[in-house]
Amino acid sequence: MPKDLSLAVDAMGGDYGPEINVPGSLAAARETGAKIILVGDEASINQELGRHAHNDLEVEVVHTTQVAGMAERPSDILRRKKDSSIQVAFRLVREGRAQGVVTAGNSGAALACGMFILGRINGVDRPALASIMPTLKKPIVLIDVGANADCKPYNLVQFGLMAEVLARHVLGIASPKVGILSIGEEEGKGNALTKEAYSLLKSSSLNFIGNVEGRDVFTGETDVIVCDGFVGNVALKLSEGLGSALTTMLKTELKRSIWSKLGTLIALPAFKRFTKKIDYAEYGGAPILGLNGIAIVCHGSSNARAITTALQQAALFVRKKANDQIVQGLHANTELSLFSRSGQSSVMRREASGL
Amino acid sequence: MPKDLSLAVDAMGGDYGPEINVPGSLAAARETGAKIILVGDEASINQELGRHAHNDLEVEVVHTTQVAGMAERPSDILRRKKDSSIQVAFRLVREGRAQGVVTAGNSGAALACGMFILGRINGVDRPALASIMPTLKKPIVLIDVGANADCKPYNLVQFGLMAEVLARHVLGIASPKVGILSIGEEEGKGNALTKEAYSLLKSSSLNFIGNVEGRDVFTGETDVIVCDGFVGNVALKLSEGLGSALTTMLKTELKRSIWSKLGTLIALPAFKRFTKKIDYAEYGGAPILGLNGIAIVCHGSSNARAITTALQQAALFVRKKANDQIVQGLHANTELSLFSRSGQSSVMRREASGL
Repeated sequence: MPKDLSLAVDAMGGDYGPEINVPGSLAAARETGAKIILVGDEASINQELGRHAHNDLEVEVVHTTQVAGMAERPSDILRRKKDSSIQVAFRLVREGRAQGVVTAGNSGAALACGMFILGRINGVDRPALASIMPTLKKPIVLIDVGANADCKPYNLVQFGLMAEVLARHVLGIASPKVGILSIGEEEGKGNALTKEAYSLLKSSSLNFIGNVEGRDVFTGETDVIVCDGFVGNVALKLSEGLGSALTTMLKTELKRSIWSKLGTLIALPAFKRFTKKIDYAEYGGAPILGLNGIAIVCHGSSNARAITTALQQAALFVRKKANDQIVQGLHANTELSLFSRSGQSSVMRREASGL
Repeated sequence: MPKDLSLAVDAMGGDYGPEINVPGSLAAARETGAKIILVGDEASINQELGRHAHNDLEVEVVHTTQVAGMAERPSDILRRKKDSSIQVAFRLVREGRAQGVVTAGNSGAALACGMFILGRINGVDRPALASIMPTLKKPIVLIDVGANADCKPYNLVQFGLMAEVLARHVLGIASPKVGILSIGEEEGKGNALTKEAYSLLKSSSLNFIGNVEGRDVFTGETDVIVCDGFVGNVALKLSEGLGSALTTMLKTELKRSIWSKLGTLIALPAFKRFTKKIDYAEYGGAPILGLNGIAIVCHGSSNARAITTALQQAALFVRKKANDQIVQGLHANTELSLFSRSGQSSVMRREASGL
């Protein structure tokens, strides 16, 4: 029986290549019922496939001869590595052979492939990287976490419109609350960018709840938090770094005496539940929103579980027709998304700057 | 014997007023040998003084009739509350009766009092709020954490010059490494502001080590990290929020079974050491750098220990003549601090904008 859904996986991507991408993909094929297209070096992929039962699954291998390095410049990968697993995986989506792509490879290259191979959804000025973050209450969406270092106010509105669809259809939140990451709760607090974005968001169709301070991100009260890609990337990486620093500090203290070692041993199941709760692998990858196709970027150090979760997200996104919902959201707010407050449209801006 | 050093304390500041400010100040007087001037409602202060032995210490009370609220607008406090404890405490520094001031009150009001009562050090374009943060290795300085939401590239250079003095003389680091908070390690990564600041910092007299990513803040490898006040405030509050969310999550898991409760009890000393290590009270307050006088702002929820640590920092700052060092640092880099890359001086900019 032919599958309703095909997903492409950059099998060479990430720090471990086929070793984690193949088993992660097979688990996702089993859980979602999707067909998986593994893109990369055929021999390495087949070797890994030989290690896992998959006769009940629909799996295709597309052979490629090049691999994109994690440290290579995205523009170089785009220009010189036409047969790299990441480029070919994105092309499968453009050609309609797959409806979504997951990669743990070079995230700059993934953004570039998204922009130049898939292209932007009509009306989207800047695609953005969304991160699903664990909080005290439930996962939330932080957007943009790195695609756009410098933003205009209306970009933040579009980020909100796109991420609201993610929160609604992937996280299953009925009427997502949207906030803006800022420094002070009251209207009028923030920098020039957030203050202007605040008034645009207020008149949008979104369930806008105002400013959210850094300390309130992890309470989980706000479902979608928008910010520029510089602030979002700093926030995301700072959270990762702090999480790992705190874990290290706690471990060091717990290992210091025989008593605390014993105590830790007795409380081990609790520590394991805690670790699982804050494990990024449970939250999948970061979708690039605003492209003609579904693309999800995973951490370079992803394990098989993270790849599985990302593919599940991709499947959900495709089946919920998330991109159609994004188009509708943009359409319902055209006056906000196409025009900045000065009344100049983003298209005019691009033309004026010669891009 | 008259003391070489007097420090003023806003005794009404913070969530608990004299109840924590008085004992915190007495401990600091004992440890630093400084004279302490407690500013606020005389009756409340004397009542609290009556609870603690202090005959061996030099303590003065300056009575004031007004208190600045935590939610009041700084400009209102400045204009309408001339006899508020925070304003009077800052005036004692301007009048030379104290060399430094510590407040756990409204931080916006503290910044306003700093700017308008103490004034800026000659050559400083924008005073900034520095935070001393715990890391895996040792405390580091993050600057600016909230005084300036929108910055010019040369502001970031001045922040670096001022914080370097703090790292050198208060944290005791011989040749502090200065980095810029950004999104990618390589030169050329970042937003418009950080990219321009990067090239200015490279040609400064600072020991500049380049970009620092969010995930590397807590490794403690970089001694001073500069950023604009928006990014810094988000980073600071996000760290506080995440730290407390992780602690809550871990506690919840540890309380779930009788076994994990037992394990926690056995490992309790380790948990206590861990908590102390990440307790902000051990790291004092956030100095406002660039003012004619030493001013340190503490968290509104500060305990007595945090007030003591902040006063110790203030004493160290005064005794090390930190402000003279800042003047020297600015002087050694005049061409960077007064001119932006476009060749327009900050003074000219201000004149052009009519300020």
